[in-house]
Amino acid sequence: MSINHVLAPIQTELQQVEARLREAVRVDYAPLANVFEMLIGSGGKRIRPALSILATKFHPTDPDEAFTLAISTELVHAATLIHDDLIDKSAVRRGSPTISSRWSGTATVLAGDFLLARAADIAASIENFRVMRIFARTLMTICEGEIRQDFARAQWPPDRAEYYRHIESKTASLFTACTEGGAILSGAPEEEIAALRSYGRNLGMAFQMVDDILDFTSDENELGKPVGSDLRQGTFTLPVFYYLEQDARAKTIGDFKRVDIERLIDAIRTSPAIAAAKAEAQRTAQTARDALAVFSDNVYRRALFDLANYVIERTL
Amino acid sequence: MSINHVLAPIQTELQQVEARLREAVRVDYAPLANVFEMLIGSGGKRIRPALSILATKFHPTDPDEAFTLAISTELVHAATLIHDDLIDKSAVRRGSPTISSRWSGTATVLAGDFLLARAADIAASIENFRVMRIFARTLMTICEGEIRQDFARAQWPPDRAEYYRHIESKTASLFTACTEGGAILSGAPEEEIAALRSYGRNLGMAFQMVDDILDFTSDENELGKPVGSDLRQGTFTLPVFYYLEQDARAKTIGDFKRVDIERLIDAIRTSPAIAAAKAEAQRTAQTARDALAVFSDNVYRRALFDLANYVIERTL
Repeated sequence: MSINHVLAPIQTELQQVEARLREAVRVDYAPLANVFEMLIGSGGKRIRPALSILATKFHPTDPDEAFTLAISTELVHAATLIHDDLIDKSAVRRGSPTISSRWSGTATVLAGDFLLARAADIAASIENFRVMRIFARTLMTICEGEIRQDFARAQWPPDRAEYYRHIESKTASLFTACTEGGAILSGAPEEEIAALRSYGRNLGMAFQMVDDILDFTSDENELGKPVGSDLRQGTFTLPVFYYLEQDARAKTIGDFKRVDIERLIDAIRTSPAIAAAKAEAQRTAQTARDALAVFSDNVYRRALFDLANYVIERTL
Repeated sequence: MSINHVLAPIQTELQQVEARLREAVRVDYAPLANVFEMLIGSGGKRIRPALSILATKFHPTDPDEAFTLAISTELVHAATLIHDDLIDKSAVRRGSPTISSRWSGTATVLAGDFLLARAADIAASIENFRVMRIFARTLMTICEGEIRQDFARAQWPPDRAEYYRHIESKTASLFTACTEGGAILSGAPEEEIAALRSYGRNLGMAFQMVDDILDFTSDENELGKPVGSDLRQGTFTLPVFYYLEQDARAKTIGDFKRVDIERLIDAIRTSPAIAAAKAEAQRTAQTARDALAVFSDNVYRRALFDLANYVIERTL
């Protein structure tokens, strides 16, 4: 099932999101305008805008407020991509050269910061304090998560609890802001807000687990970067933990810095650790789906349900 | 006239600001908590909190809202110090080693980002949309200014209009957010809000001009860094522009990269350019004072008036 098919019920809204995103990154200063246009123009799945809009659909909602949430969350995502590419030293993103490959580290970081500030500016225009605070807290969570990752890099043996904290702050926190924020804007009762918060959080956790699995199981062409690049950077993800648990040889790994990375990557991708990690992602997506039980059936609930399937089945 | 004397009418409030600032940077993650504590604990003039509070004093204002504005603006200032120290490669700030001298560039930037997000979180708690939007816009202005500076570095001949834009975004925008924000929180009429906005902007411009002059006229002990460090980094400030205008020899400067920096710094600090730059700072501070004409005389108006004198007369 393609993402377009899953999101068909909000197709018109997502087209508007594209137009508004381009509007949102229109700035006077030409160098900034160019990089933002390239970043936003080169697409992406727009899962965060889709979540924001779907979460408002269970009660009549001011469409402008829904769009504003959708755009501000996607801008936060774009800003973190800029910072991630710098941290990971990636040269290409969605087929275009990354900002970090063309600008100084300082300018790259500041471009990301500018986008975060723009996102905060747009979020503030919703004029809903509860949403604004969720938004600001999410920014803090994301920053703290990135700092923790920077400090935890290549620490051996890796800490599994740290992995869950990391994907929560890196991905699930923003997914949660989308669904919880949308529910609040729609005037949903607290029970539904809690349900959509739980859905967003678990969907985000599952999404990132799958991302981390694909980093092992895809090939270099699909990934646009070498297979196992997380491990190469000293970032330990879910398949690594299952591998360490399951494989007797893994226990003999002494100093990570001395490990033959190519062999380790190959051992992990051909081990049962991949299926075990995928099963955990599936269970997490199921928890997301279970949270939707409070809603009666309609096209939007079905879209959220199918999105949880898509997140697991996707290969890219 | 010392800063403590000028700010005597709000002494009690400023003591509370210190306590609340410490509270605001208390975070769970120990490495972050330590650097923030060091940064906030090592003091500073607290001009931005003072401006925020003074600007609320012309009408009865919820003291909590005034404190919240005061703290969020000082946190933004602290965040920009973290980023500045990284960009300028400074090793010491207020007698303590800078974060950037101990952490990776990435971690340093993220620590600054975290503080910005915390500031936004605190600002959002005021629950005043107009203030929140001013706050978000100010963050954008500061980021865009830093990016412009990064790109403009060492471009010769330097652009004077670019200098004014830079000090506006770097310093005056946050001063403006303090005074305009405070006026809005106090429920002041639009005329007074405009007056305090103008006061803050011009005070900020004058403050930064004096900073830039002191970079030439102080000694290394007072500055905690070499004299003329802006020029050494390829950043051209007000004294440089007056020197280029006034000194016939300056016109012969061809390629900046080939200039004998020590000789140029010495030439500027002993030239009439210093007095000319100071006169411009004085005129700008006078414009700030003129804006206070809409208020009748009281201790707070006098404090704002004296602050504009202090900003010019200070040697540190």
